[in-house]
Amino acid sequence: MLRMIFDQIPPKVDSYLAGYIPAQPGSLYDPVRAALSSGGKRVRPTLTALAAGEAAEAAWLPAAAAVELLHAFTLVHDDIMDNAETRRGRPAIHIAFGLNAAILSGDAIVALATGALAQSPNAGDMLAEFSAGFRAVCEGQALDKEFEDRDDVSVKEYLTMVELKTARIFELAAALGAIANGGANIEILRRFAREIGIAFQLQDDLLDLTGGESFGKTIGGDIIEGKRTVLFVLAMQQHNDIQGEDLRLLDGIRECSATLEDVPLARTLFRRLGVLDETASMAAKYTKSAERQLESLPDMQRNGLLEFSKRLLGRTV
Amino acid sequence: MLRMIFDQIPPKVDSYLAGYIPAQPGSLYDPVRAALSSGGKRVRPTLTALAAGEAAEAAWLPAAAAVELLHAFTLVHDDIMDNAETRRGRPAIHIAFGLNAAILSGDAIVALATGALAQSPNAGDMLAEFSAGFRAVCEGQALDKEFEDRDDVSVKEYLTMVELKTARIFELAAALGAIANGGANIEILRRFAREIGIAFQLQDDLLDLTGGESFGKTIGGDIIEGKRTVLFVLAMQQHNDIQGEDLRLLDGIRECSATLEDVPLARTLFRRLGVLDETASMAAKYTKSAERQLESLPDMQRNGLLEFSKRLLGRTV
Repeated sequence: MLRMIFDQIPPKVDSYLAGYIPAQPGSLYDPVRAALSSGGKRVRPTLTALAAGEAAEAAWLPAAAAVELLHAFTLVHDDIMDNAETRRGRPAIHIAFGLNAAILSGDAIVALATGALAQSPNAGDMLAEFSAGFRAVCEGQALDKEFEDRDDVSVKEYLTMVELKTARIFELAAALGAIANGGANIEILRRFAREIGIAFQLQDDLLDLTGGESFGKTIGGDIIEGKRTVLFVLAMQQHNDIQGEDLRLLDGIRECSATLEDVPLARTLFRRLGVLDETASMAAKYTKSAERQLESLPDMQRNGLLEFSKRLLGRTV
Repeated sequence: MLRMIFDQIPPKVDSYLAGYIPAQPGSLYDPVRAALSSGGKRVRPTLTALAAGEAAEAAWLPAAAAVELLHAFTLVHDDIMDNAETRRGRPAIHIAFGLNAAILSGDAIVALATGALAQSPNAGDMLAEFSAGFRAVCEGQALDKEFEDRDDVSVKEYLTMVELKTARIFELAAALGAIANGGANIEILRRFAREIGIAFQLQDDLLDLTGGESFGKTIGGDIIEGKRTVLFVLAMQQHNDIQGEDLRLLDGIRECSATLEDVPLARTLFRRLGVLDETASMAAKYTKSAERQLESLPDMQRNGLLEFSKRLLGRTV
């Protein structure tokens, strides 16, 4: 039953988007379609569907598509700002279509998101949520870029950034689902989504060093790009106590001069500093807290969201 | 009475925006504020207010601000795509704050626009209009960029582009005002706004060669940038009949190699080709048709919109 839900939602979203994205002008919508068909798992729309409980598909599907569109837009524009050349093994949109087309098609994806939202029966209520989530994502990206020039980012600041940039779009996905379901349990669903979103980002940072290639990321990509991940933030807190080769390695990561062959050394160092364990335990804490929110929900919805949590965080149990 | 309305609306919009745009993070909202304070005349919000007739301020002001924000966003992102260095005599946002900040603050301006719209009593109905206008603007910009690589753009294609890129945001402004007023005369207001928007752009193209510096544009700026204005499109239709110096001049404009000293020559050529007269007569035709739409409106609203048309097109009578 649950597996069925999880298998059905992504094709529903894909089918909605296929019928929704215009063909012309191709210079605008070809990059839009490329951005939407890059093998995403439709995680956020699935959360919208689960949060919508027993609500009819027409009540939640356009909103679920709106969240996926908003997410896709962030990837297109972030890849420009981050100078990222690839996304899930394919050329980033600005590499494949050029800077101007990437800026403009990112804009058009937001326009399409607002149009999908407008097709929802509760468009007015949903718009306030959408706008808040959209603003948060922009603010989170601004902080992320600010942090690139700073060496003293605290864990608290990092978590604020992740909440804005990553978790609030999970929260949006859940809130729109709840609104589609008459607002049932909206605060519970909101908190669950926000915490599971933070856990997801912490784990994403961790998997950069501990995951396999199957996660679709280049192992150590964050290290090589010098990204301000939680691993880096935690390691920098011990900067004064680090010496010799370890210090040169950490400073190399900080200055974005680390290379592929530094990745195993970074893994060893970060493990020795306790940074990997600490991140894993933070992620577990957020996950546990998120799942605890679900206790009072109806059985089927709770089980769906527990399964969502498991799948999102790649756990087999 | 009318002068009072026209003097009051821009400060109302400015005051709404001043209280609405957040302060932090400054890396995001400093460029947003710069983009919103660059001396715009708040033309589109004024149209929203006039279209709203007797509706209460709370019904139309957030929507009017949303339209101004959407317009400001297009300027920020278009200036990047057009490599424009200045906007109304100040450095463009991407020049003053850098590419990344310009992309991201443009995005944030759209987020703020959706948030302003959400504050409207009729947010749900307004969202469908907003989304349609937003999409149209993106499609118009895409066509405008496509036309840069083409020499055979027809007047019809040019008008389609202008309708999408310029007129549809005027239409949006009017439609949101009408919705704030219970939908009164929405189709009339829509048509008026769309036609007056086209007239505005045609005149803007014309003023590049015939206007004074007081219009805030560099005289001949479009000629120097090789923009596909209606003047250029009309002149290119006579390309086969043009020879010698005239041909070299027209081809120079086409290849973006014209300089400031070519501007008077271009004006003379375009006048001789009848291009200036034809554009003026097209603009007059659209203006007349737009004003004719207003006949059945209530006296005060009709007079307000006639005055809007006069002021927009810089006519003293």
